[in-house]
Amino acid sequence: MLNLAILISGRGSNMEAILKSIKKKKMPINPAVVISNKPDAKGLKIAEKLGVKTEIVISKGFKGDRWDYDKKIITVLKRYGVTPTNGFVCLAGFMRIISPQFIRKYKNRIMNIHPALLPAFSGLEVQKQAVDYGVKYSGCTVHLADERVDTGPIIIQAVVKVNDNDTAETLAKRILKQEHRIYPEAVRLFAKGKIKISGRKTKIS
Amino acid sequence: MLNLAILISGRGSNMEAILKSIKKKKMPINPAVVISNKPDAKGLKIAEKLGVKTEIVISKGFKGDRWDYDKKIITVLKRYGVTPTNGFVCLAGFMRIISPQFIRKYKNRIMNIHPALLPAFSGLEVQKQAVDYGVKYSGCTVHLADERVDTGPIIIQAVVKVNDNDTAETLAKRILKQEHRIYPEAVRLFAKGKIKISGRKTKIS
Repeated sequence: MLNLAILISGRGSNMEAILKSIKKKKMPINPAVVISNKPDAKGLKIAEKLGVKTEIVISKGFKGDRWDYDKKIITVLKRYGVTPTNGFVCLAGFMRIISPQFIRKYKNRIMNIHPALLPAFSGLEVQKQAVDYGVKYSGCTVHLADERVDTGPIIIQAVVKVNDNDTAETLAKRILKQEHRIYPEAVRLFAKGKIKISGRKTKIS
Repeated sequence: MLNLAILISGRGSNMEAILKSIKKKKMPINPAVVISNKPDAKGLKIAEKLGVKTEIVISKGFKGDRWDYDKKIITVLKRYGVTPTNGFVCLAGFMRIISPQFIRKYKNRIMNIHPALLPAFSGLEVQKQAVDYGVKYSGCTVHLADERVDTGPIIIQAVVKVNDNDTAETLAKRILKQEHRIYPEAVRLFAKGKIKISGRKTKIS
Protein backbone atom coordinates (compact mmCIF):
# COMPACT_ATOMS: atom_id res chain seq x y z
CA MET A 1 0.00 0.00 0.00
CA LEU A 2 1.20 3.42 -0.96
CA ASN A 3 0.84 6.15 1.63
CA LEU A 4 -0.64 9.32 0.18
CA ALA A 5 -0.41 12.87 1.50
CA ILE A 6 -2.47 15.65 -0.03
CA LEU A 7 -1.36 19.27 0.42
CA ILE A 8 -4.04 21.97 0.36
CA SER A 9 -4.52 25.65 1.09
CA GLY A 10 -8.26 26.04 0.61
CA ARG A 11 -11.34 23.99 -0.09
CA GLY A 12 -9.34 21.26 -1.77
CA SER A 13 -12.01 20.09 -4.18
CA ASN A 14 -9.44 17.96 -5.99
CA MET A 15 -8.45 16.48 -2.63
CA GLU A 16 -12.07 15.50 -2.09
CA ALA A 17 -12.32 13.98 -5.57
CA ILE A 18 -9.17 11.94 -4.97
CA LEU A 19 -10.18 10.72 -1.51
CA LYS A 20 -13.64 9.68 -2.67
CA SER A 21 -12.25 7.96 -5.73
CA ILE A 22 -9.72 5.97 -3.68
CA LYS A 23 -12.56 4.58 -1.59
CA LYS A 24 -14.97 4.03 -4.47
CA LYS A 25 -12.47 2.35 -6.75
CA LYS A 26 -10.73 0.48 -3.94
CA MET A 27 -7.34 1.75 -5.00
CA PRO A 28 -4.30 0.23 -3.22
CA ILE A 29 -3.65 3.54 -1.48
CA ASN A 30 -3.68 4.56 2.15
CA PRO A 31 -4.79 8.21 2.31
CA ALA A 32 -2.47 8.90 5.22
CA VAL A 33 -2.77 12.64 5.80
CA VAL A 34 -4.01 15.96 4.47
CA ILE A 35 -1.73 18.88 5.26
CA SER A 36 -2.70 22.54 5.01
CA ASN A 37 -0.49 25.60 5.25
CA LYS A 38 -3.54 27.58 6.35
CA PRO A 39 -5.32 26.76 9.61
CA ASP A 40 -8.73 27.78 8.25
CA ALA A 41 -8.61 25.79 5.01
CA LYS A 42 -12.09 24.40 4.44
CA GLY A 43 -10.67 21.19 3.04
CA LEU A 44 -9.45 20.18 6.53
CA LYS A 45 -13.01 19.55 7.74
CA ILE A 46 -13.89 17.75 4.52
CA ALA A 47 -10.89 15.46 4.94
CA GLU A 48 -11.83 14.71 8.55
CA LYS A 49 -15.39 13.86 7.52
CA LEU A 50 -13.90 11.42 5.06
CA GLY A 51 -11.91 9.83 7.88
CA VAL A 52 -8.51 11.19 6.91
CA LYS A 53 -6.06 12.64 9.43
CA THR A 54 -5.17 16.30 9.02
CA GLU A 55 -2.20 18.44 9.97
CA ILE A 56 -1.49 22.15 9.78
CA VAL A 57 1.96 23.54 9.04
CA ILE A 58 1.40 27.28 9.17
CA SER A 59 3.30 29.20 6.51
CA LYS A 60 2.14 32.71 7.38
CA GLY A 61 4.82 34.52 9.36
CA PHE A 62 7.15 31.53 9.05
CA LYS A 63 10.74 32.59 9.61
CA GLY A 64 13.06 30.75 7.30
CA ASP A 65 13.40 29.94 3.62
CA ARG A 66 11.34 27.62 1.43
CA TRP A 67 13.46 24.61 2.27
CA ASP A 68 13.20 25.29 6.00
CA TYR A 69 9.42 25.25 5.64
CA ASP A 70 9.43 22.17 3.45
CA LYS A 71 11.54 20.32 6.04
CA LYS A 72 8.66 20.81 8.46
CA ILE A 73 6.30 19.33 5.88
CA ILE A 74 8.65 16.38 5.35
CA THR A 75 8.75 15.73 9.09
CA VAL A 76 4.98 15.38 9.04
CA LEU A 77 5.06 13.24 5.90
CA LYS A 78 7.48 10.80 7.53
CA ARG A 79 5.36 10.60 10.66
CA TYR A 80 2.54 9.27 8.45
CA GLY A 81 4.73 6.92 6.46
CA VAL A 82 4.72 9.10 3.35
CA THR A 83 8.36 8.43 2.47
CA PRO A 84 10.17 8.71 -0.86
CA THR A 85 10.06 4.92 -1.18
CA ASN A 86 6.63 4.19 0.18
CA GLY A 87 4.56 7.28 -0.40
CA PHE A 88 3.58 10.05 -2.71
CA VAL A 89 2.24 13.55 -2.50
CA CYS A 90 -0.59 15.29 -4.34
CA LEU A 91 -0.68 19.06 -4.49
CA ALA A 92 -4.31 20.16 -4.58
CA GLY A 93 -4.50 23.91 -4.62
CA PHE A 94 -1.48 24.20 -2.33
CA MET A 95 -0.58 27.85 -2.81
CA ARG A 96 3.14 27.62 -2.21
CA ILE A 97 6.11 26.94 -4.45
CA ILE A 98 7.91 23.76 -3.44
CA SER A 99 11.67 23.94 -2.89
CA PRO A 100 14.01 22.08 -5.26
CA GLN A 101 15.31 20.11 -2.26
CA PHE A 102 11.83 18.74 -1.49
CA ILE A 103 11.30 17.93 -5.18
CA ARG A 104 14.63 16.06 -5.34
CA LYS A 105 13.95 14.09 -2.14
CA TYR A 106 10.57 12.97 -3.51
CA LYS A 107 11.65 12.75 -7.13
CA ASN A 108 8.73 11.82 -9.42
CA ARG A 109 6.56 11.32 -6.34
CA ILE A 110 4.90 14.74 -6.18
CA MET A 111 1.95 15.36 -8.47
CA ASN A 112 0.21 18.59 -9.30
CA ILE A 113 -2.80 19.66 -11.32
CA HIS A 114 -2.94 22.81 -13.41
CA PRO A 115 -6.11 24.26 -14.97
CA ALA A 116 -4.76 24.68 -18.51
CA LEU A 117 -3.21 22.64 -21.29
CA LEU A 118 0.41 23.12 -20.32
CA PRO A 119 2.75 24.47 -21.59
CA ALA A 120 0.08 27.06 -22.41
CA PHE A 121 -0.93 29.39 -19.58
CA SER A 122 1.32 28.51 -16.68
CA GLY A 123 1.37 30.55 -13.50
CA LEU A 124 -1.66 32.16 -11.91
CA GLU A 125 -5.11 33.37 -13.06
CA VAL A 126 -4.85 30.66 -15.62
CA GLN A 127 -8.44 30.51 -16.86
CA LYS A 128 -8.50 34.29 -17.22
CA GLN A 129 -5.30 34.08 -19.27
CA ALA A 130 -6.99 31.56 -21.57
CA VAL A 131 -10.17 33.62 -21.98
CA ASP A 132 -8.22 36.84 -22.55
CA TYR A 133 -5.99 35.18 -25.14
CA GLY A 134 -9.02 33.97 -27.05
CA VAL A 135 -8.12 30.28 -27.35
CA LYS A 136 -10.86 27.96 -28.57
CA TYR A 137 -9.73 25.07 -26.39
CA SER A 138 -8.18 24.90 -22.95
CA GLY A 139 -8.20 22.14 -20.37
CA CYS A 140 -6.21 20.80 -17.47
CA THR A 141 -2.98 18.93 -16.86
CA VAL A 142 -1.84 16.49 -14.19
CA HIS A 143 1.95 16.49 -14.05
CA LEU A 144 4.81 15.48 -11.85
CA ALA A 145 6.44 18.37 -10.06
CA ASP A 146 9.94 19.22 -11.17
CA GLU A 147 12.29 21.96 -10.01
CA ARG A 148 10.52 24.68 -11.95
CA VAL A 149 6.86 25.72 -11.83
CA ASP A 150 4.30 23.96 -14.07
CA THR A 151 6.94 22.26 -16.21
CA GLY A 152 7.22 18.65 -15.03
CA PRO A 153 6.40 15.50 -17.01
CA ILE A 154 2.74 15.38 -18.04
CA ILE A 155 0.69 12.38 -16.94
CA ILE A 156 -2.82 13.16 -18.21
CA GLN A 157 -4.43 16.13 -19.93
CA ALA A 158 -8.09 16.81 -20.63
CA VAL A 159 -9.41 19.21 -23.26
CA VAL A 160 -12.22 21.69 -22.59
CA LYS A 161 -13.86 23.77 -25.30
CA VAL A 162 -13.85 27.51 -24.67
CA ASN A 163 -17.12 29.17 -25.68
CA ASP A 164 -17.31 32.67 -27.15
CA ASN A 165 -19.22 33.94 -24.13
CA ASP A 166 -17.09 32.23 -21.48
CA THR A 167 -15.75 34.23 -18.57
CA ALA A 168 -12.83 33.07 -16.44
CA GLU A 169 -15.42 31.81 -13.96
CA THR A 170 -17.61 29.81 -16.33
CA LEU A 171 -14.55 28.29 -17.98
CA ALA A 172 -12.97 27.47 -14.61
CA LYS A 173 -16.13 25.61 -13.60
CA ARG A 174 -16.07 23.35 -16.65
CA ILE A 175 -12.33 22.78 -16.35
CA LEU A 176 -12.75 21.86 -12.67
CA LYS A 177 -15.13 19.04 -13.64
CA GLN A 178 -12.39 17.56 -15.77
CA GLU A 179 -9.82 18.09 -13.00
CA HIS A 180 -11.97 15.99 -10.69
CA ARG A 181 -11.95 13.26 -13.31
CA ILE A 182 -8.28 13.16 -14.36
CA TYR A 183 -6.55 13.79 -11.03
CA PRO A 184 -8.00 10.67 -9.36
CA GLU A 185 -7.28 8.74 -12.55
CA ALA A 186 -3.63 9.84 -12.44
CA VAL A 187 -3.43 8.79 -8.79
CA ARG A 188 -4.85 5.39 -9.69
CA LEU A 189 -2.36 4.93 -12.53
CA PHE A 190 0.49 5.93 -10.23
CA ALA A 191 -0.59 3.52 -7.49
CA LYS A 192 -0.87 0.67 -9.99
CA GLY A 193 2.64 1.37 -11.32
CA LYS A 194 1.27 2.11 -14.77
CA ILE A 195 3.20 5.32 -15.36
CA LYS A 196 6.59 4.87 -17.01
CA ILE A 197 8.75 7.99 -16.93
CA SER A 198 11.64 8.54 -19.29
CA GLY A 199 13.20 11.98 -19.28
CA ARG A 200 10.33 14.40 -19.32
CA LYS A 201 7.92 12.04 -21.07
CA THR A 202 5.49 9.57 -19.58
CA LYS A 203 3.95 6.47 -21.05
CA ILE A 204 0.83 4.94 -19.60
CA SER A 205 0.80 1.15 -19.79
CA MET B 1 -16.77 38.48 -54.41
CA LEU B 2 -13.66 38.54 -52.29
CA ASN B 3 -10.37 38.19 -54.10
CA LEU B 4 -8.06 35.69 -52.42
CA ALA B 5 -4.30 35.39 -52.67
CA ILE B 6 -2.46 32.42 -51.21
CA LEU B 7 1.23 32.70 -50.38
CA ILE B 8 3.32 29.54 -50.47
CA SER B 9 6.94 28.40 -50.37
CA GLY B 10 6.58 24.68 -50.99
CA ARG B 11 3.97 22.11 -51.82
CA GLY B 12 1.20 24.20 -50.34
CA SER B 13 -1.06 21.38 -49.23
CA ASN B 14 -3.22 23.83 -47.31
CA MET B 15 -3.43 25.94 -50.47
CA GLU B 16 -4.73 22.93 -52.32
CA ALA B 17 -7.27 22.18 -49.59
CA ILE B 18 -8.51 25.77 -49.67
CA LEU B 19 -8.75 25.98 -53.46
CA LYS B 20 -10.61 22.68 -53.73
CA SER B 21 -12.96 23.63 -50.93
CA ILE B 22 -13.81 26.99 -52.54
CA LYS B 23 -14.89 25.18 -55.68
CA LYS B 24 -16.67 22.31 -53.92
CA LYS B 25 -18.59 24.48 -51.48
CA LYS B 26 -19.18 27.28 -53.99
CA MET B 27 -17.80 29.89 -51.64
CA PRO B 28 -18.22 33.54 -52.71
CA ILE B 29 -14.48 33.81 -53.29
CA ASN B 30 -12.40 34.44 -56.37
CA PRO B 31 -9.09 32.59 -55.93
CA ALA B 32 -7.18 35.32 -57.71
CA VAL B 33 -3.55 34.31 -57.39
CA VAL B 34 -1.04 32.02 -55.73
CA ILE B 35 2.30 33.66 -55.03
CA SER B 36 5.50 31.82 -54.18
CA ASN B 37 8.79 33.23 -52.97
CA LYS B 38 10.51 30.16 -54.40
CA PRO B 39 10.47 29.51 -58.14
CA ASP B 40 10.50 25.74 -57.69
CA ALA B 41 7.64 25.51 -55.18
CA LYS B 42 5.64 22.43 -56.09
CA GLY B 43 2.41 24.18 -55.19
CA LEU B 44 2.72 26.42 -58.26
CA LYS B 45 1.95 23.55 -60.62
CA ILE B 46 -0.86 22.33 -58.41
CA ALA B 47 -2.43 25.80 -58.44
CA GLU B 48 -2.16 25.99 -62.22
CA LYS B 49 -3.82 22.61 -62.58
CA LEU B 50 -6.65 23.95 -60.48
CA GLY B 51 -6.96 26.90 -62.85
CA VAL B 52 -5.46 29.54 -60.57
CA LYS B 53 -2.93 32.12 -61.77
CA THR B 54 0.51 31.99 -60.19
CA GLU B 55 3.26 34.50 -59.61
CA ILE B 56 6.79 34.24 -58.29
CA VAL B 57 8.40 36.96 -56.20
CA ILE B 58 11.86 35.58 -55.55
CA SER B 59 13.13 36.24 -52.03
CA LYS B 60 16.51 34.52 -52.30
CA GLY B 61 19.21 37.11 -52.85
CA PHE B 62 16.69 39.94 -52.59
CA LYS B 63 18.42 43.20 -51.73
CA GLY B 64 16.33 45.23 -49.35
CA ASP B 65 14.51 44.84 -46.07
CA ARG B 66 11.34 42.90 -45.30
CA TRP B 67 9.10 45.82 -46.16
CA ASP B 68 10.86 46.35 -49.52
CA TYR B 69 10.12 42.72 -50.35
CA ASP B 70 6.56 42.90 -49.10
CA LYS B 71 5.95 45.97 -51.30
CA LYS B 72 6.70 43.77 -54.29
CA ILE B 73 4.16 41.26 -53.02
CA ILE B 74 1.58 44.03 -52.54
CA THR B 75 2.14 45.21 -56.11
CA VAL B 76 1.23 41.74 -57.31
CA LEU B 77 -1.75 41.54 -54.93
CA LYS B 78 -3.15 44.79 -56.30
CA ARG B 79 -2.71 43.64 -59.86
CA TYR B 80 -5.06 40.76 -59.04
CA GLY B 81 -7.55 42.87 -57.12
CA VAL B 82 -6.48 41.56 -53.73
CA THR B 83 -6.81 44.92 -51.97
CA PRO B 84 -7.29 45.72 -48.28
CA THR B 85 -10.96 46.43 -48.98
CA ASN B 86 -11.76 43.72 -51.46
CA GLY B 87 -9.36 40.91 -50.80
CA PHE B 88 -7.64 38.74 -48.30
CA VAL B 89 -4.48 36.71 -48.02
CA CYS B 90 -3.85 33.19 -46.77
CA LEU B 91 -0.37 32.17 -45.71
CA ALA B 92 0.07 28.48 -46.47
CA GLY B 93 3.55 27.41 -45.54
CA PHE B 94 4.99 30.74 -46.64
CA MET B 95 8.41 30.59 -45.02
CA ARG B 96 8.96 34.30 -44.47
CA ILE B 97 8.10 36.68 -41.68
CA ILE B 98 5.69 39.38 -42.85
CA SER B 99 6.62 43.00 -42.16
CA PRO B 100 4.49 45.05 -39.73
CA GLN B 101 3.77 47.49 -42.57
CA PHE B 102 2.20 44.75 -44.68
CA ILE B 103 0.20 43.52 -41.67
CA ARG B 104 -1.07 47.04 -40.98
CA LYS B 105 -2.05 47.66 -44.60
CA TYR B 106 -4.04 44.40 -44.67
CA LYS B 107 -5.20 44.57 -41.07
CA ASN B 108 -7.21 41.47 -40.11
CA ARG B 109 -7.09 40.32 -43.72
CA ILE B 110 -4.09 38.02 -43.53
CA MET B 111 -4.66 34.52 -42.17
CA ASN B 112 -2.15 31.92 -41.15
CA ILE B 113 -2.24 28.33 -39.96
CA HIS B 114 0.06 26.94 -37.29
CA PRO B 115 0.45 23.23 -36.47
CA ALA B 116 -0.03 23.52 -32.69
CA LEU B 117 -2.57 24.74 -30.18
CA LEU B 118 -1.26 28.28 -29.84
CA PRO B 119 -0.01 29.84 -27.62
CA ALA B 120 1.76 26.52 -27.02
CA PHE B 121 4.66 25.72 -29.36
CA SER B 122 5.08 28.77 -31.53
CA GLY B 123 7.98 29.12 -33.94
CA LEU B 124 9.50 26.29 -35.95
CA GLU B 125 9.75 22.48 -35.64
CA VAL B 126 6.46 22.73 -33.89
CA GLN B 127 5.38 19.09 -33.89
CA LYS B 128 8.82 18.05 -32.63
CA GLN B 129 8.48 20.59 -29.83
CA ALA B 130 5.15 19.03 -28.86
CA VAL B 131 6.46 15.45 -28.95
CA ASP B 132 9.60 16.37 -27.01
CA TYR B 133 7.60 18.21 -24.37
CA GLY B 134 5.40 15.18 -23.84
CA VAL B 135 1.99 16.81 -24.22
CA LYS B 136 -0.97 14.49 -24.51
CA TYR B 137 -2.85 16.78 -26.90
CA SER B 138 -1.71 19.13 -29.61
CA GLY B 139 -3.51 20.41 -32.69
CA CYS B 140 -3.58 23.34 -35.08
CA THR B 141 -4.64 26.95 -35.10
CA VAL B 142 -5.94 29.27 -37.81
CA HIS B 143 -5.31 32.84 -36.77
CA LEU B 144 -5.14 36.33 -38.18
CA ALA B 145 -1.62 37.61 -38.58
CA ASP B 146 -0.62 40.44 -36.28
CA GLU B 147 2.66 42.26 -35.92
CA ARG B 148 4.34 39.48 -34.02
CA VAL B 149 4.80 35.84 -35.00
CA ASP B 150 2.06 33.28 -34.16
CA THR B 151 0.22 35.63 -31.81
CA GLY B 152 -2.77 37.05 -33.72
CA PRO B 153 -6.47 36.53 -32.93
CA ILE B 154 -7.46 32.87 -33.15
CA ILE B 155 -10.26 31.92 -35.54
CA ILE B 156 -10.46 28.13 -35.24
CA GLN B 157 -8.45 25.48 -33.43
CA ALA B 158 -8.58 21.71 -33.73
CA VAL B 159 -7.34 19.25 -31.13
CA VAL B 160 -5.25 16.20 -31.99
CA LYS B 161 -4.38 13.48 -29.49
CA VAL B 162 -0.67 12.76 -29.13
CA ASN B 163 0.08 9.06 -28.78
CA ASP B 164 2.87 7.68 -26.63
CA ASN B 165 4.71 6.34 -29.66
CA ASP B 166 4.23 9.39 -31.88
CA THR B 167 7.22 10.90 -33.64
CA ALA B 168 7.23 14.45 -34.96
CA GLU B 169 6.41 12.94 -38.37
CA THR B 170 3.45 10.76 -37.36
CA LEU B 171 2.00 13.58 -35.29
CA ALA B 172 2.51 16.10 -38.11
CA LYS B 173 0.60 13.84 -40.47
CA ARG B 174 -2.46 13.66 -38.22
CA ILE B 175 -2.32 17.39 -37.49
CA LEU B 176 -2.12 18.13 -41.22
CA LYS B 177 -5.41 16.32 -41.77
CA GLN B 178 -7.04 18.72 -39.34
CA GLU B 179 -5.31 21.70 -40.96
CA HIS B 180 -6.90 20.74 -44.26
CA ARG B 181 -10.27 20.77 -42.54
CA ILE B 182 -10.12 23.97 -40.47
CA TYR B 183 -8.24 26.28 -42.83
CA PRO B 184 -10.87 26.07 -45.60
CA GLU B 185 -13.55 26.40 -42.93
CA ALA B 186 -11.92 29.60 -41.62
CA VAL B 187 -11.75 30.95 -45.18
CA ARG B 188 -15.45 30.19 -45.64
CA LEU B 189 -16.37 31.93 -42.38
CA PHE B 190 -14.30 34.95 -43.36
CA ALA B 191 -15.88 35.18 -46.80
CA LYS B 192 -19.35 34.96 -45.31
CA GLY B 193 -18.59 37.76 -42.84
CA LYS B 194 -19.14 35.45 -39.92
CA ILE B 195 -16.00 36.34 -37.96
CA LYS B 196 -16.40 39.21 -35.52
CA ILE B 197 -13.13 40.53 -34.16
CA SER B 198 -12.87 42.51 -30.95
CA GLY B 199 -9.40 43.17 -29.63
CA ARG B 200 -7.58 39.88 -29.88
CA LYS B 201 -10.70 37.74 -29.60
CA THR B 202 -12.95 36.43 -32.32
CA LYS B 203 -16.56 35.36 -32.23
CA ILE B 204 -18.03 33.15 -34.90
CA SER B 205 -21.66 33.96 -35.69
